[in-house]
Amino acid sequence: MSAYKVYGDSLSGNCLKVKWTLDLVGRSYAWIETSVLKGETRSEKFLALNPAGQVPLLITPAGEPLAQSNAIILYLAEAHGGDLLPKETFARAKVYEWLFWEQYSHEPYIAVRRFQKFYLKKSDADIDPKLMEKGLAALTRMERQLRASSWIAGEEFSVADISLVAYTRAADEGGFDLNAFPSVKGWVARVEERFRQGMR
Amino acid sequence: MSAYKVYGDSLSGNCLKVKWTLDLVGRSYAWIETSVLKGETRSEKFLALNPAGQVPLLITPAGEPLAQSNAIILYLAEAHGGDLLPKETFARAKVYEWLFWEQYSHEPYIAVRRFQKFYLKKSDADIDPKLMEKGLAALTRMERQLRASSWIAGEEFSVADISLVAYTRAADEGGFDLNAFPSVKGWVARVEERFRQGMR
Repeated sequence: MSAYKVYGDSLSGNCLKVKWTLDLVGRSYAWIETSVLKGETRSEKFLALNPAGQVPLLITPAGEPLAQSNAIILYLAEAHGGDLLPKETFARAKVYEWLFWEQYSHEPYIAVRRFQKFYLKKSDADIDPKLMEKGLAALTRMERQLRASSWIAGEEFSVADISLVAYTRAADEGGFDLNAFPSVKGWVARVEERFRQGMR
Repeated sequence: MSAYKVYGDSLSGNCLKVKWTLDLVGRSYAWIETSVLKGETRSEKFLALNPAGQVPLLITPAGEPLAQSNAIILYLAEAHGGDLLPKETFARAKVYEWLFWEQYSHEPYIAVRRFQKFYLKKSDADIDPKLMEKGLAALTRMERQLRASSWIAGEEFSVADISLVAYTRAADEGGFDLNAFPSVKGWVARVEERFRQGMR
């Protein structure tokens, strides 16, 4: 059986989620670097694989494409994940809740502000102030949660931690000061340590 | 065992997703009308239940709160859903893909434009043109998909149909003309017929 393929941009936190998850579940994969800035996700060839024109895109060993970073990591956790997803139905639902919150209330502010500031080199004055305001609200909510529980969705490490760390760890590149969020900062270090050690 | 409780705004498609799913799986629930326009999702009492300050919010019979519409309907499908979620791992992953796509690439344009036009009574000139452009792109992608498959995530009706119909059926209130998307329009009618008939 051949391995997974991942079309991904190494600059994108959404793509790194897939890399980290594959590494944690110990599956081999080919990484096909696909640059958003160079427009490679809008080529005809790529759009035939993913009509949404977005990376990451996973191709399964059976040749089937799957898009949306959080859908991909949920799938990998179900297919190979061991302890990356709680077995109890309601605990798993809390993981889903954080995954959807990440895409709706975190990524559109924290990732987008980082992209504009760090990659497009926009000055603060040229960035919609809503991005800072809503990004701070997201970090504030995470700080509160991470004072109450060890990991983002409770007492178990899960794909919700993988998803939320992706842009939180790079929030400073978007102009957010993580020193104001000590529990978040400590959690980022613990998640990154987990990545270094591999799945336990 | 007591029933579910739903804090929801009847004007919100995200909230209706939860109502439809509970009806389809045949579970009783108390609906607690909670108005976004009146600021009831920002009250101290509500924020204590859901720090994200958003409806819908499900309270399980055990008293546990769960937020994020798509997380709630996934949870209900797993807990009680019968045929609302495919059993095969990759087919289920395609449902996840559409659920995340809905929150990232559909709802922020189609639901938001409807809210601004229909509820806030903004004129077209006062609405960010990006909302129409990206909303049309989302409907175009759905049209293409629904020419290729009976339901949005494949040949099985699933929570992805429930999720995507919520704002698609009301897209005309946001200024989108569904007559330009005949496969989408036919699918909306079939999903609504399914709601009327209950789960088969």
